[in-house]
Amino acid sequence: MNDSSSSRIEAGLRNWIATAAPGARLPSTRELVARHQASPVTVQHALRMLTARGLIESRPGVGTFVRAVRTVRTADYGWQTAALRSFPARVDSLSTALRSASNDVIALHAGYPDRELLPERLVRSALARAARTDAALARPPAAGLPELQTWFANELGAVTPAGITPPTPSDAIVLPGSQSGLSSVFRALVGVGQPLLMESPTYWGAILAARQAGALVVPVPGGPAGPDPGQLERAFRETAARVFYAQPNYANPTGAQWPTALHEQVLQVVREHGAFLVEDDWAHDFGITSAPTPVAAHDDAGHVVYLRSLTKSVSPAIRVAAVIARGPARERLLADRGAESMYVSGLLQAAALDVVTQPAWHSHLRGLRQQLGTRRDLLVAALREHAPQAELGVVPAGGLNLWVRLPDGTDVHQLAYDCEKAGLIIAPGTEWFPAEPTGSFVRLNYAGPSPAAFPAGARLLGRALANGPGR
Amino acid sequence: MNDSSSSRIEAGLRNWIATAAPGARLPSTRELVARHQASPVTVQHALRMLTARGLIESRPGVGTFVRAVRTVRTADYGWQTAALRSFPARVDSLSTALRSASNDVIALHAGYPDRELLPERLVRSALARAARTDAALARPPAAGLPELQTWFANELGAVTPAGITPPTPSDAIVLPGSQSGLSSVFRALVGVGQPLLMESPTYWGAILAARQAGALVVPVPGGPAGPDPGQLERAFRETAARVFYAQPNYANPTGAQWPTALHEQVLQVVREHGAFLVEDDWAHDFGITSAPTPVAAHDDAGHVVYLRSLTKSVSPAIRVAAVIARGPARERLLADRGAESMYVSGLLQAAALDVVTQPAWHSHLRGLRQQLGTRRDLLVAALREHAPQAELGVVPAGGLNLWVRLPDGTDVHQLAYDCEKAGLIIAPGTEWFPAEPTGSFVRLNYAGPSPAAFPAGARLLGRALANGPGR
Repeated sequence: MNDSSSSRIEAGLRNWIATAAPGARLPSTRELVARHQASPVTVQHALRMLTARGLIESRPGVGTFVRAVRTVRTADYGWQTAALRSFPARVDSLSTALRSASNDVIALHAGYPDRELLPERLVRSALARAARTDAALARPPAAGLPELQTWFANELGAVTPAGITPPTPSDAIVLPGSQSGLSSVFRALVGVGQPLLMESPTYWGAILAARQAGALVVPVPGGPAGPDPGQLERAFRETAARVFYAQPNYANPTGAQWPTALHEQVLQVVREHGAFLVEDDWAHDFGITSAPTPVAAHDDAGHVVYLRSLTKSVSPAIRVAAVIARGPARERLLADRGAESMYVSGLLQAAALDVVTQPAWHSHLRGLRQQLGTRRDLLVAALREHAPQAELGVVPAGGLNLWVRLPDGTDVHQLAYDCEKAGLIIAPGTEWFPAEPTGSFVRLNYAGPSPAAFPAGARLLGRALANGPGR
Repeated sequence: MNDSSSSRIEAGLRNWIATAAPGARLPSTRELVARHQASPVTVQHALRMLTARGLIESRPGVGTFVRAVRTVRTADYGWQTAALRSFPARVDSLSTALRSASNDVIALHAGYPDRELLPERLVRSALARAARTDAALARPPAAGLPELQTWFANELGAVTPAGITPPTPSDAIVLPGSQSGLSSVFRALVGVGQPLLMESPTYWGAILAARQAGALVVPVPGGPAGPDPGQLERAFRETAARVFYAQPNYANPTGAQWPTALHEQVLQVVREHGAFLVEDDWAHDFGITSAPTPVAAHDDAGHVVYLRSLTKSVSPAIRVAAVIARGPARERLLADRGAESMYVSGLLQAAALDVVTQPAWHSHLRGLRQQLGTRRDLLVAALREHAPQAELGVVPAGGLNLWVRLPDGTDVHQLAYDCEKAGLIIAPGTEWFPAEPTGSFVRLNYAGPSPAAFPAGARLLGRALANGPGR
């Protein structure tokens, strides 16, 4: 089945339906196959989507018909305006990074790796195995399957130097994805109306979670080599914040990796202020020319709350992550997870553990590292050749993204619109700033579909930058 | 493998380890098999659990050893006390209903149906099928798979009377379990410091979610036939609340089902106050002598926010539920879900849809209804015979629980403790009251393991009631 021809057929039929009478009969599948030169499976998929949207209904053995809409009147939900009141922390719509795109555009906006970068065979067999075990029918403990807690704790323990107590399995709480972890951390450790320091720019999902938790976000400038400890110190002092959110390895969006010396400097500031460092190690499996080095490995006094996810490296369907925290902070987090979702599907936990404990997982990660390197270099070269106006501060040593600065005054939303008309989707950099952006940026993902189209994408970007109005 | 012998071996080894030196070698698997008269699989399971708890470590080809603890000092997390501040809404630990129990006790405390009541074959084959499709590797839309949204909307649409506009598929938002739905509803529609009316007694998970959201819970007395509309009216008037949480069908814990006339009366009060009714239809698949009738079917003006879960009837591993809401309320909920978890595993959604669209699902539900009826009647008869002090207000027409009133002055926590010593686990009723309990209650679940043990369980309860101190 071809996704883009299915969308094409669906769009065509939508137009047809818009002018048809309720109850009108659609052309038969055979006619649609002939008219659109598509397979019956593709046509049927389009029909299923239209059924799901409530536009048509099929009567088996009779045919498919434009749905006679049962709406007897337009509902007025105006009364809800008063009931809902204005929202204390307005939560915006989802980011560009979550948009899905059809196959006929060049997509550099995505937040997730393309399917060809996922361990497909491992995922399918792990899920099939888990479906045959207890995990398909049992309820796991609230903190997670003990074996999976152990795996997460051991991953961090393996890089913990001598003299530092490594985390225990019970310090790890399994989460249904790291977004849920961010929400819980900000709710449980920061709270409504309290200050929260965040690197800026930073992950849009973390900004969203912070707003949802009602935290007062205080940006700390990031820079190509991580935050300046002096600036961080001042922010703690001025705001009396107790929590600092950061991504020390391959930060999203900038790609920055903290130099080793900065780990201890930041920890020092955090300790002095009796505060938490929330370390989001989202790209742990995406090192290219360096290895990720968690700051959490250097702390055993409970100052670092460490988030590690498997969703992006294993499969978007296996939403499994963990937060490692010690002391009362862990209790707060566990209580928040209990109230929020009680437990994480044991099937997904068993499948995740199966994948990451297979010998083939390590060879997959080695291959992934190479593929990401090739893709990154291809996009960097394409930009340098075809979009010289785009300035690349850092060629990241890992992660999935390039963070590109555009000439001052570039209207990035207009640019994104112009690019999309020409067949290229990019993510405006504004989404990664908790406050006003400090320049014109776009984030380009080199882990998306069709790396062969990177040169063409860079050419479209270069052309839009050269020709576009308002720049 | 036998769970209880595995636990027994584990407990034995724990005692052994407690007095052994770090690095001491454990008896071989063969010796343990002989000593405990258990299978090698059972012994290995016990060893895996001890490994997961960090108590032992195995060196392949050498043996298994008491883990040399790497802790060099006891950590002092006292500094966190200041950083965490006191908690605005203290979130308690999880309920008795989530405790797991070994096979050698009689368990009447559980919140979930026993495995023999689940459609095991359907679940396993649906998961195996989903593992082979796109769902194993793709990211679904934030609101859910369109086909599953359609199924949830159609379920409610099918009982919507003529003249009322049924919900559309896009009114349904797929959730990773209904607990997440409760959290989102209270966060998005009530908010910090705002009043929230709740039936009392009511589902402990809803109380927990309300506290986490910082809502001000205002109890409205429930009663065997639902809340009194006059009391509800007064509560709305006095508090200016805009949200009322209720379970009109087979309420947990009381088992009450609202009479049909009450549907319109409550809707009337809710409309007059420009408010929302949050209808938790948790037991939709658990009707016994009546059919569940959602209040939501009588509203198309967006007053009812409707929660329906599949976790308890399909499998605890398939954490899938949906909230159906219309108008701006739906937008608020979708934004909250995005910030909280972005999307629900497409694999679990595909598997859930597969199960509930199989013809065998309907025959499963018919069988389930019979089994629940038999179990309910067995427990009711056993209580009447062996624990006449326990007073059963309502024999519920559906759901999983009996709500039992004990003689005034009974200390239910002492009673639960006495029962547990004698081999019976029950859930003290206090957990279902948002404020002080109005009497001594226990909740007894008739959907747990071993219905054959119900008479023995009732006998233990009757004896504890007759002999226990402090009553």
